[in-house]
Amino acid sequence: RCPQRSMAMLDIPFPPFLAFLGSLGVLCVALVGTWCQHWRGGFSLDGGSRTFNWHPVLMVTGLVVLYGAAALVYRIPATWSGPKLPWKLLHGGLALGAFVLTVLGLAAVFCFHNSNGIPNMYSLHSWMGLATVLLFSCQWAAGFGAFLLPWAPTWIRQLYKPIHVFFGSTILLLSVASCVSGINEKLFFSLKNGTTQYKLLPAEAVFANTLGMLILLFGVLVVGALARPSWKRPDPNSLDSRQ
Amino acid sequence: RCPQRSMAMLDIPFPPFLAFLGSLGVLCVALVGTWCQHWRGGFSLDGGSRTFNWHPVLMVTGLVVLYGAAALVYRIPATWSGPKLPWKLLHGGLALGAFVLTVLGLAAVFCFHNSNGIPNMYSLHSWMGLATVLLFSCQWAAGFGAFLLPWAPTWIRQLYKPIHVFFGSTILLLSVASCVSGINEKLFFSLKNGTTQYKLLPAEAVFANTLGMLILLFGVLVVGALARPSWKRPDPNSLDSRQ
Repeated sequence: RCPQRSMAMLDIPFPPFLAFLGSLGVLCVALVGTWCQHWRGGFSLDGGSRTFNWHPVLMVTGLVVLYGAAALVYRIPATWSGPKLPWKLLHGGLALGAFVLTVLGLAAVFCFHNSNGIPNMYSLHSWMGLATVLLFSCQWAAGFGAFLLPWAPTWIRQLYKPIHVFFGSTILLLSVASCVSGINEKLFFSLKNGTTQYKLLPAEAVFANTLGMLILLFGVLVVGALARPSWKRPDPNSLDSRQ
Repeated sequence: RCPQRSMAMLDIPFPPFLAFLGSLGVLCVALVGTWCQHWRGGFSLDGGSRTFNWHPVLMVTGLVVLYGAAALVYRIPATWSGPKLPWKLLHGGLALGAFVLTVLGLAAVFCFHNSNGIPNMYSLHSWMGLATVLLFSCQWAAGFGAFLLPWAPTWIRQLYKPIHVFFGSTILLLSVASCVSGINEKLFFSLKNGTTQYKLLPAEAVFANTLGMLILLFGVLVVGALARPSWKRPDPNSLDSRQ
């Protein structure tokens, strides 16, 4: 019933695709770090704009790249046989690392706003971003409770698994949408005066716009990889409830 | 091999879900129209800001709502049997309608920029939006050539179909990300002075932020519905190449 036949004609093996995605993720982290270091004044913890700079770096690293890595764990063929617990710990651990960076990224922007008398949570970017983080915290807690703790009955795991998978992709898409709206917003804030106006498209604007496009590409490729039938673990239901 | 068993425990029938999605889409169109009419001065064709106002309305209506309707045609169980050509014409026709509105939406913003000496294509929103429209034009042309014209051989249709399906969801997600970044940007442009600053969260900001969140919800639900195995047409490969 799955459309495997025509997919087989397009079959790319997962490992080289993962290597490409990994390089793209590292590139995104390097570019957001370079943007904040080179054009936005670097990093500090003093509550000023250099404290804000942790926000884009931590969000892209945590909520996009590390989150994407966590989401893709079960697409590695080695996870399909043998004991599942180590892979569950890797999946949950990467997601927890992503969550910790995300919370630090939120702390950076709240600290900057509060130190400078700027209200929190007014822009659509902030609404969308906070909704993403709240969904992520529910996703992690529910995943931990259902799949890592040994008490959940099999029917709960079976019922919750497609929901967990759906929200896994959804949260990544929301975080990518949050990142691009945030980069767009930050460039309008930062590039205001004289010859560096955003609308004159200075080097910083080209650089950060390119970063935004690469983040979009990363998100779309991760969600596409997750959705690809031939990269999914065969017969997940029967394996799912063993551990 | 498909995880049908646990999905069956969560089975919602498609028709009521489609009715809900349709209502949500109509609500998004009504809200974006109300935003532009009530807070942004309404509509005209004079090249001023009231010409710009066609841009959000046409993009939300075309590239999100009508596009979403086109994407969901083959999830209607009535399309799974009988002649496929009428449904192909409906799918392609809705997509063409979405494309026409999208091009008019682009024309509105270019006309506004050109009439007011504002550069085009500098923001991340504009890069992402134009990339979305370019992908959409390729998608429509390739879909027309492969599935509506009678000449494409079966193996081309089988090879291209998963690509068409993947880009179908991807373009919708990009268009939703473009919409939210555009609404965010427009609110920063428009809400600058005195008591109506965006950061003071006036009624317009709450209204348009809510619109952005509903557009996100619409996009996520359409893509989720497209990905849901139990709502896909059974055995698409064998049916696909008949017409």
